[in-house]
Amino acid sequence: MIRAAKPLCVNGSPIANGRLPVVCTPLVARTADAILAELATVMQASPDMIEWRVDHFGGIADAAAVVELARRIEAGANGTPIIFTRRSEREGGAPTSLPDAQAIALYEAVCAARCVEFVDWELSNGAASVARVRAAARANGVALIASYHNFRDTPERGVLTEKFAQAAREGADVAKVAVMPNDAGDVLSLLDATWQASRALDIPLISMSMGPLGALSRIAGFMYGSALTFAVGAASSAPGQLGIDELRAALAVLHRASGSERRDD
Amino acid sequence: MIRAAKPLCVNGSPIANGRLPVVCTPLVARTADAILAELATVMQASPDMIEWRVDHFGGIADAAAVVELARRIEAGANGTPIIFTRRSEREGGAPTSLPDAQAIALYEAVCAARCVEFVDWELSNGAASVARVRAAARANGVALIASYHNFRDTPERGVLTEKFAQAAREGADVAKVAVMPNDAGDVLSLLDATWQASRALDIPLISMSMGPLGALSRIAGFMYGSALTFAVGAASSAPGQLGIDELRAALAVLHRASGSERRDD
Repeated sequence: MIRAAKPLCVNGSPIANGRLPVVCTPLVARTADAILAELATVMQASPDMIEWRVDHFGGIADAAAVVELARRIEAGANGTPIIFTRRSEREGGAPTSLPDAQAIALYEAVCAARCVEFVDWELSNGAASVARVRAAARANGVALIASYHNFRDTPERGVLTEKFAQAAREGADVAKVAVMPNDAGDVLSLLDATWQASRALDIPLISMSMGPLGALSRIAGFMYGSALTFAVGAASSAPGQLGIDELRAALAVLHRASGSERRDD
Repeated sequence: MIRAAKPLCVNGSPIANGRLPVVCTPLVARTADAILAELATVMQASPDMIEWRVDHFGGIADAAAVVELARRIEAGANGTPIIFTRRSEREGGAPTSLPDAQAIALYEAVCAARCVEFVDWELSNGAASVARVRAAARANGVALIASYHNFRDTPERGVLTEKFAQAAREGADVAKVAVMPNDAGDVLSLLDATWQASRALDIPLISMSMGPLGALSRIAGFMYGSALTFAVGAASSAPGQLGIDELRAALAVLHRASGSERRDD
């Protein structure tokens, strides 16, 4: 068994008994009812984690409504660890009217409510905001994922390893890098940078190369240090998205093959 | 659909209608009866190609017996293209008492019998022998795969791309490189070298990173320019070998995922 990746933990215990990668399914509906219905559908596929992408929620500007819905998601997730994420429009999120200062206050409220296990905050929000979110998370036993997303291209390896390192320096519990490949070589760059960072840093990493070319990284990233991969829990919402069942089938092939040698080439 | 790889062709037509990668199953039994029984089992899994590893055949020193068995394999393969391969012990083959000069004569006899579509001949046999095998192959409408195997380690990228280039320079119709990774990074090197070679050369390529770490390359190599992957046709002969059905299941996931975008990370 190849274990290049450090596992994500909750209360000191690895999620999914340390199985790698953990499979995380996002919630992206717009209304509370639709989000809870999406959760119910997603839970049938038994994801290892749930990410609530709050930037898709119409009520994001109402912190009390967000906390209330987070509690209902927690109840529906039935112990499945939750990532709370307001992805900024700048890094590929849905457009919202929430100013950054209000976003920090929202994270502080959600952390104080202790109804999620992880929060994802972008490095591009600036070191001061990372420090504030980190303080709120740490005070409430929530883990901080510091993230970098690039939907245009894949920066060179050194830039990618520096993003992972920056997340570690700024006190994140987990570092995440998601980038867009423009050719097949970019996918190798992302995997290589993840692999280098996984040997240099002490925190767990999450990485992926997006789009059709990057599908490989969603399946094989765990061999290069990525502890988590995203998959669609219900039926795919667009052709070609990796469903949780097919992702797990491909992972099972890789896991099995990683256990032996063959020399008949 | 991502088509980094140039397809293997027989009589000018791509094998398996150009589906990539083609899946090739080796025959490695020792006696004629066992080889034909292995073929019958393997054919049930409908491989796209068959490789007869004649170095495992006890009768290898008897050219007439080899040609006769090749004809019987051709009949049993029922139109499935066949690669005829004497892998040298030096490059990971079974020990045989066949001197190199006799091996060339064996290839000449098999080519003259026109009962296989491809022959695999190692670059390390030397340029003069490659030229002789190439002449015999070309005179009989057989395609030459010029190959390089390294079961110890993965040379650096430049060495790998040079092996592909050398095969092209020496007139091969297909270039093959199979190397052993000692860490996960070596698998990326093999994929990267294949990808670079596929853009620099006009001939189809075959490549793989072997062993447990390399399993990824058997599934995803086609995205980096490798036209063929090997798989076990019958039940695996050792734990963790990729069976043809599970390999195809993993390939189907990658093919499907390669057809669309997802932006919810």
